[in-house]
Amino acid sequence: MLLIGELINCTRQRVGAATAARSAAVIESVARQQVAAGADVLDVNGGLPGQEAEALTWLVGVVQGVTDRRLCLDSCDPAALAAALPLCHVPPIINSIELARFDAVTPLVTEYGAGVIALAMGPAGPPSGVEERVENAARIVDRLTAAGVSLQDIYLDPCVMPVSTIGDGGAAVAECITQVRGRYPGIHTVAGLSNVSFGLPLRKLLNQVFLALLLSRGLDCVIADPTDRQLMATLRAAAALLGHDEYCMEYIKAFRSGLLEPVAAAAIPTPAAVPPVETAGATTV
Amino acid sequence: MLLIGELINCTRQRVGAATAARSAAVIESVARQQVAAGADVLDVNGGLPGQEAEALTWLVGVVQGVTDRRLCLDSCDPAALAAALPLCHVPPIINSIELARFDAVTPLVTEYGAGVIALAMGPAGPPSGVEERVENAARIVDRLTAAGVSLQDIYLDPCVMPVSTIGDGGAAVAECITQVRGRYPGIHTVAGLSNVSFGLPLRKLLNQVFLALLLSRGLDCVIADPTDRQLMATLRAAAALLGHDEYCMEYIKAFRSGLLEPVAAAAIPTPAAVPPVETAGATTV
Repeated sequence: MLLIGELINCTRQRVGAATAARSAAVIESVARQQVAAGADVLDVNGGLPGQEAEALTWLVGVVQGVTDRRLCLDSCDPAALAAALPLCHVPPIINSIELARFDAVTPLVTEYGAGVIALAMGPAGPPSGVEERVENAARIVDRLTAAGVSLQDIYLDPCVMPVSTIGDGGAAVAECITQVRGRYPGIHTVAGLSNVSFGLPLRKLLNQVFLALLLSRGLDCVIADPTDRQLMATLRAAAALLGHDEYCMEYIKAFRSGLLEPVAAAAIPTPAAVPPVETAGATTV
Repeated sequence: MLLIGELINCTRQRVGAATAARSAAVIESVARQQVAAGADVLDVNGGLPGQEAEALTWLVGVVQGVTDRRLCLDSCDPAALAAALPLCHVPPIINSIELARFDAVTPLVTEYGAGVIALAMGPAGPPSGVEERVENAARIVDRLTAAGVSLQDIYLDPCVMPVSTIGDGGAAVAECITQVRGRYPGIHTVAGLSNVSFGLPLRKLLNQVFLALLLSRGLDCVIADPTDRQLMATLRAAAALLGHDEYCMEYIKAFRSGLLEPVAAAAIPTPAAVPPVETAGATTV
C-alpha cells in the first residue's frame, strides 16, 4: 500500500500563500508532518496562476531538503513537469496523464523512468459507469505500455465522482478496479477519495468507508491526508484484516502509540449544519 | 441488505437471566430497540443449558408479541428448531446448518419454507484459506439445492475467524464471498463480524472496517448489533457509496436524525488497556 500525502498543494490557502511568498518553513513543516504520519510519497502541486513551473521547482527543492521520500509531481502543465523532473533525486510519480495530454507527458515519463498516474478520463470528460471507465482505462494503459512504460509504473485512477449526483459512481469505481487488475496483472490502482462525498454531510465518514470498499477490491495506492487519523485508522485496520500486516503488529503498534483514537466528537458538524444536497434529482424523489 | 439483530441471545447475561426467569419485559424491550434501530430480522437464541426448546419457544412467542419482523431461529439443536418453527408467523431463517447436522435440519428447512444460514464448516472444523472455504461452501449448497432448497433461501456464511491468529482469514472470507456469488447467482451471503477482531484492541473499529470490506464484495446480510451506531453508520455510508441508496436520501435522513454521530471518545479504551495479543506466533515476530 502506497500512501501519497496530498497536503503540499497550492490550491490549499496556507500552502499557496507560503509558496507565493517562498516561505520554506511552512512547506518544510507540512512535509515533515506528513512523513511522520506515515506518507510514503509526497504530492507536490505548484498550481499558482502564471508561475506554476517556478512554484513547482521551488517546492521540489524545499521538500527534498527535509525528506528523501519520493515525490509525486502534481501538474497538468507539461512545461512545469519538464522543469521539475530533472531536480528530483529519485524518479517521481507524475500526477497525471490522460489522453488529452498524452503526447506531451509520455516522453517525460519514459525519459525520467517515472511512475505515472493514468486517468480513466474520456475524450468528452469523466467516465460514467463501469464499461466506459474500463474502456478508457484500457485505452490509456495500452498506449502507455506501447510507449514503453511498464505496468508496474502505471497507477490507474478510475476517476472518482460524487455519489450525490452519480448514484452508481462509487460502485463503478470499485468494479473498475477489479476489472483493471484482472486485465493488467502488476498494474497499480490509485484513487483520490474525497470527491466521492462532495455535497454530502459527514464527508470524512464517507471517505473512510469508501477507502475500505476500494481496498477490498485491491486498491494499492491512495492520495489522502495522512494526518487524518480516522482515515489512517481505517487504512491500518484494513491492512490487518486483509492480511497485509503480519500478526497485526503494525495495527497493535499504532494502537499503543495512540494513533487509532477517533477525532473529537466536537469536530463533527451537527445535523443543523448539513449542507443542501447538491443534486437536482434529489428534489424529485 | 438484510440486517439481522443479534441481541436476543441467551449467552448474553441479561437476556439469559431474563429468559430463565421468563421476564418478558426485558426481551420485549430488546426486540423493540433493535427494530427501532433498523433490524430487518431478529435473531432469537434460547441457548439455556437443558431447556433450549422451552426457552426458544418462549422467546419466539414474546418477540412476536411486539413485532412482526421475521425471526432467525438460532440453535444447533434440531429438537429446539422443530418446537419453535410451527410458532413462527412467517417462515423464519434457520441459523444454522452445516454438514454435521444436515440430515436433521434440512427437512425442517423444506417443510417450513424457511431460509437457512449454511456454514462453510468442514468435517474437521472451521475452514482455512479460500479454496477450502469455497469447497466447503459448494458442498453444503449443492446438497441443500439437491434437497429442494432454492438459492434465494440460502445464506452462505464463510466462517469468519480471528485475524490475530489466522492472518489471511479476513481476506479469505472476502474472496470466498466473491467466488460463491459468482458460482451461485442469487445466493445470499452472511457474516457474523465480531469473530474477526478477537484478541485485538479497538474491536469495533476492526468490525466496522471488516463490514465495509465484505460489503464491497457483495455481502448482503449481516448479523450484528443494530444499536451499534458506528457499525450502522458504516452500513449506511456503504449503501450510499455502493448505489444502494438512491440519491443518498437514507444516508441524509440518518444524518439529520443524528444517527451517524460517532460514539463518545470515552467509550474507547486507552492504550494502557490493550489486551495481550492472543496468538502464539506474535511473540516470534
